[in-house]
Amino acid sequence: MSQAHSPLKSTAIFSALLSIALAPHAQAKADFMHSTVKQATTIDTLPVIQDWKHAANGVWSASIGDMSQELRYTDLAAEPPRIERLNTLGDPEFPFEADAIRYSVNPDGRIMVRIPCGPDEKLYGYGLQLDKVNQTSRVLELNVDHWGKGGGRTHAPVPFYVSSKGYGVFFNTARFLKVFNQISNRKDATQRPPEVDRNPPKDEIASQPGKWQASPMGDSVEAAISGSGLELMVFAGDSMLEVVQRYNLYSGGGALPPLWGLGFWHRVHAHHNAEQVEAEVAEYTENKFPLDVIGLEPGWMTKSYPCTFEWQTKRFPDPQAFTQGLLDQGIRLNLWENPYISQNAKLYEDMFPLSGSHTVWLGIVPDYTLPEARNLLAAQHKADHFDIGISGYKMDEVDGYDRWLWPDHATFPSGNSAEALRQTYGMLLQKMLYQDLFKANNQRTYSLVRASNGAASGYPFVIYSDSYDHEQYITGLSTASLCGILWTPEIRSAGSSREWLNRMQTVCFSPMANLNAWASGVKPWDFPEVTDAVRDVIELRMRLLPYFYSAFASYNRDGIPPVRAMILEGDFKDTAATVIEGELDSETNPYATGEIIEKNDQFMFGPSIMVAPFYGKHATERSVQLPAGNWYNFYTGELAGNNTSISVTAAELKDRTPLFVKEGAVIPMFTEAPLNSKDAKGQDLDRAPLRQRQPAACELYEDDATTFDYQRGASRIRTLSVDADGALEVKIEGNGPSLFGEILNVEQMTK
Amino acid sequence: MSQAHSPLKSTAIFSALLSIALAPHAQAKADFMHSTVKQATTIDTLPVIQDWKHAANGVWSASIGDMSQELRYTDLAAEPPRIERLNTLGDPEFPFEADAIRYSVNPDGRIMVRIPCGPDEKLYGYGLQLDKVNQTSRVLELNVDHWGKGGGRTHAPVPFYVSSKGYGVFFNTARFLKVFNQISNRKDATQRPPEVDRNPPKDEIASQPGKWQASPMGDSVEAAISGSGLELMVFAGDSMLEVVQRYNLYSGGGALPPLWGLGFWHRVHAHHNAEQVEAEVAEYTENKFPLDVIGLEPGWMTKSYPCTFEWQTKRFPDPQAFTQGLLDQGIRLNLWENPYISQNAKLYEDMFPLSGSHTVWLGIVPDYTLPEARNLLAAQHKADHFDIGISGYKMDEVDGYDRWLWPDHATFPSGNSAEALRQTYGMLLQKMLYQDLFKANNQRTYSLVRASNGAASGYPFVIYSDSYDHEQYITGLSTASLCGILWTPEIRSAGSSREWLNRMQTVCFSPMANLNAWASGVKPWDFPEVTDAVRDVIELRMRLLPYFYSAFASYNRDGIPPVRAMILEGDFKDTAATVIEGELDSETNPYATGEIIEKNDQFMFGPSIMVAPFYGKHATERSVQLPAGNWYNFYTGELAGNNTSISVTAAELKDRTPLFVKEGAVIPMFTEAPLNSKDAKGQDLDRAPLRQRQPAACELYEDDATTFDYQRGASRIRTLSVDADGALEVKIEGNGPSLFGEILNVEQMTK
Repeated sequence: MSQAHSPLKSTAIFSALLSIALAPHAQAKADFMHSTVKQATTIDTLPVIQDWKHAANGVWSASIGDMSQELRYTDLAAEPPRIERLNTLGDPEFPFEADAIRYSVNPDGRIMVRIPCGPDEKLYGYGLQLDKVNQTSRVLELNVDHWGKGGGRTHAPVPFYVSSKGYGVFFNTARFLKVFNQISNRKDATQRPPEVDRNPPKDEIASQPGKWQASPMGDSVEAAISGSGLELMVFAGDSMLEVVQRYNLYSGGGALPPLWGLGFWHRVHAHHNAEQVEAEVAEYTENKFPLDVIGLEPGWMTKSYPCTFEWQTKRFPDPQAFTQGLLDQGIRLNLWENPYISQNAKLYEDMFPLSGSHTVWLGIVPDYTLPEARNLLAAQHKADHFDIGISGYKMDEVDGYDRWLWPDHATFPSGNSAEALRQTYGMLLQKMLYQDLFKANNQRTYSLVRASNGAASGYPFVIYSDSYDHEQYITGLSTASLCGILWTPEIRSAGSSREWLNRMQTVCFSPMANLNAWASGVKPWDFPEVTDAVRDVIELRMRLLPYFYSAFASYNRDGIPPVRAMILEGDFKDTAATVIEGELDSETNPYATGEIIEKNDQFMFGPSIMVAPFYGKHATERSVQLPAGNWYNFYTGELAGNNTSISVTAAELKDRTPLFVKEGAVIPMFTEAPLNSKDAKGQDLDRAPLRQRQPAACELYEDDATTFDYQRGASRIRTLSVDADGALEVKIEGNGPSLFGEILNVEQMTK
Repeated sequence: MSQAHSPLKSTAIFSALLSIALAPHAQAKADFMHSTVKQATTIDTLPVIQDWKHAANGVWSASIGDMSQELRYTDLAAEPPRIERLNTLGDPEFPFEADAIRYSVNPDGRIMVRIPCGPDEKLYGYGLQLDKVNQTSRVLELNVDHWGKGGGRTHAPVPFYVSSKGYGVFFNTARFLKVFNQISNRKDATQRPPEVDRNPPKDEIASQPGKWQASPMGDSVEAAISGSGLELMVFAGDSMLEVVQRYNLYSGGGALPPLWGLGFWHRVHAHHNAEQVEAEVAEYTENKFPLDVIGLEPGWMTKSYPCTFEWQTKRFPDPQAFTQGLLDQGIRLNLWENPYISQNAKLYEDMFPLSGSHTVWLGIVPDYTLPEARNLLAAQHKADHFDIGISGYKMDEVDGYDRWLWPDHATFPSGNSAEALRQTYGMLLQKMLYQDLFKANNQRTYSLVRASNGAASGYPFVIYSDSYDHEQYITGLSTASLCGILWTPEIRSAGSSREWLNRMQTVCFSPMANLNAWASGVKPWDFPEVTDAVRDVIELRMRLLPYFYSAFASYNRDGIPPVRAMILEGDFKDTAATVIEGELDSETNPYATGEIIEKNDQFMFGPSIMVAPFYGKHATERSVQLPAGNWYNFYTGELAGNNTSISVTAAELKDRTPLFVKEGAVIPMFTEAPLNSKDAKGQDLDRAPLRQRQPAACELYEDDATTFDYQRGASRIRTLSVDADGALEVKIEGNGPSLFGEILNVEQMTK
């Protein structure tokens, strides 16, 4: 793709910049100098973005200003765009009128883009937002940061939104982006709502054109950066899911973790030594709980906050033997780290000139946009970690807060801005670990990272947070799926056995079943009342490995998120509604200004299972919205409903998670739950017993489960078809290795 | 003062800007284009700000870049700098080394200023911050906004800080300013703290150089804007109070309200009509509660949110008669408004071309930097409000939120940026009302406004908020005093009679005794258990009118805030301390990262009275820090302590506010509490009975109480001196009118 833009546009922008540089007195400060009344910008006078380049079927890009100094998220993607696959998806038309999308370059250097939308459109996305899925009438500052105060700052503030009308817009520039999403009406807008008096006399209330709104609905998305250029991409689709697919495919497709990554994860205390870790692993065996990955927290290295990346031999005297001993049991080792380098690190001296002007916890901040810096870190990681069998990392502290990281005015030796580094630091480290360490050595990883951003769907890294609100963690499963992000609603502790069970159930239907209770010290079996129910859901995840691994293969191949928001299912109703407290003539709370509430506590797990977890106030009873089409109770196989809302209780489900399966699905499952993914290989499969009398089918993906050979064709797909009478047929495509065993046709549930 | 800066510096900055405009390919994107490793900026390479202009004794300014397009707060001040008075304050030296203050202009347009400070310095200020006074190790975004989430966004985010070493720094540019206050160490800083391992093995804990800190103390203030120029001002002083004095004097001195402004305020329901308002006024008389001002909320106008500014005659059929009727009782009328204009307003058509690109609640947003726009509004306000006797305004909604106001990329017909308009909108409206409406007609006003900013001390406008946390409201009395802002911890409602009393007591010792309970409908006498105590504190405020009015005269004349932070008293101990929860080897909460807590719940009211209100958890008992020097119980006159901490209870004080008076003070008070300020005129005075046996004195200021004639010399000061035996002497300076009556020498307290 060419980045060139029309000479005309360039000229206009450079003129604007030049007017700042060369003619400082050309613009007056009104009466503080002298008065010069001009007209404020009107929509018609905003330049139109015209040179849309067709990047693939249903994908277009255009740029404003000078992109040569700007980082683009797509430049940092894990894999190149999947143009061939994209071109199999049909060739829709550009979803806007030719002159619809306009921009401006303000005298103060802000580049603003205006994208119109209709009053009936709903806009979703903008990354991992933990409070809401529907982003109507909001202002978002898309800056990488901890999640905490909302407003757009989050671990993965992906500048991509999807419209209910079937298109998506991606701001492909690593800048802080301030988005006014269907809010802030221009005075010359033609679509704006009518003006309403907030305090009319009683005899005028009836003639008001509606209720007063604190945030009147706007007719566009207007978004701005301060930077020298902005690239905009547009994705079309027959559905929101197809738009998301295209976004993911353009980002290189979805990540495919190794099979072990989908097993159960457990992190041990930061100060544990090798013996203590081995003892915790043994506890899993004793308690008959599945386990695939052990995570070490900061104490494994000689210095942390900032880091050395070197083994603390007082705690781990023989890292290689320790790692190998775990691997022999099928247990992979994951290492916590943050990327700021201690004066005590061997890397310090070489990294010093490659680092930015400011420190983080007094450690230097390498400029990982420089290949020299990435190469230094990758080489050390290969020698000290990869070569002894380390399987992945938990890359912490790449998100925020402002008071922890470098200031926005810091400088870096590459010349990239502090802002661009902040927006991409998590991606740069994913790039280094994925491309330079693991892929270069033909081993897949599945890892954790605390920040990511646009075009990152190809990275096998899962985001986590410190915020720990169960309802928000469920919302994250939906929002992450709209922008190529994997999210784990990890479990750390609980105030009651019910909360422990509910959180454990949620995390088992997420991209990573991660127990991060090292600080609280709670083990899965520490609430005896629910130990069996907790073991049950972890075992169910293990039995569903073939189903979920195949869902990830579809993410990789087709861009369909393995866990995803209900709004990506065609018939789900977005129940978001503006609630105005305090009516016009109410005297109870005139300060109330309304709030948008929504119900986003259900999500899809794999192609066909809908999960409606118990949580918070809905700890043992909740309502479930069943979209149009027949939905079956996963456990009993009975029809649960069609286009309706039902109530479910923990008691009637025997303390299991409410799960519902779509008409036409086949859910392949292991007959027994393996305790470790190594035992999954070759194990036989059955399927969930659904009393549907329609033909049904699914695809079962297989490869060697750990290397990149699948990218060179070493995979196969078994298609399982069941006819209306329940007869099973299996077809095999591809020459890759078999991974799972035979497909039995018993159709039974064990519990 | 000249704004010129050296040709050398200008050249450097324009070169930087030109390099953006003319040579976009000169800077590489590292490996995304090709690799160019440079060194990140070091402190030594940052250009030094050298051309400090001596603006007055102890006041210097310098500018970076091009200020011709930037609004300066000082350009919007109420009155010109008080150079003559400043030059009576001594002539201190510039408080920094010659090459100490440096700057940079980053390629992305950020202008950064670096101002060093020592590890033993404490920095205060940055406007009306409601959570803390001490701002050590914080990042603040100084953007005008509602108070809510902290982080620097607030109603008056004044970019001015004061150091415990006796200097202040003011960023005199109306831009969003991001401040890294004693945080973010540069890698080449010489003063930075030692690196500490966060997770050492047990045998290394003892040899650590200290405790690990989440935010290691930095050696400077670094602050940045995106804009074309930044003016920096430095204020010196023998004490922090003198620094604040100089800042206020340079801003034109402090505001002097009319005497009636210091009486009791009451706001009525938004939907009340004239009869209902008159009935509420009558209730005050019946209940024998003082009252000076009635505030009307939005329903007084034909349309609100957005506004017409025109009388709603269905509620107020004869505004002139109504206003005059109240004035006849000594009651002033204050009108709520916001500055966004309805399509139904007569002003709409003329104002349309003078307004910005975007609307607020669908109303146009006049560009009040244009004199044309201010003149239109002032003329309408004069004809429809001022000429019938309106005394002031409550200028609402000039602060935030982002989702309510215009976007940062909006454009305005003056060419001023949306950002500059956001930072100054509250000031522009104060300027219009103060200069063009009230001062032009030789009437003082005392009004409310929801946003202000730098150099605003001369405006007789008081800030209020919706946030309503009592402890924060007390903190605001301290922080506002450091930056030329007046703040009212207004009372709206209460969950208990004790809370009602405590909040009423706090507000009575604030710049404005404002009851804003129109929404809750609560009246001062609605909690019968505390009605007498509430009346008592309002009466005390009325008795103290001569004392408090004189304190405002000193604000006006000398720049000394009438209500102010204890840290401006020489001997008050700043008790802020970093609390680390979770020790290095603790396993209880390894996520804890420490927090700075402080005690800022005492403040000075006038020159000599220290107020220590009851609030929140300290509703009926609290500790009080008495600084060095003798402090006397205001009510009993007994010595309370000297350089000590004492405990006080509501019971022992008979439900009165803890008040303590400094050695050497005379507190002039009316012998009786007037029910309205008109009754204050000519009323005799006594003084609080303090059992001190030292000479004591105070100044009693008098003028006509309502006009600007005082600016032309029509004022007088009576100095009251009391010798060690209690004998009183009175000296009169100035030829202005007498306002208060005789000074009696009874020395008694009534209650």
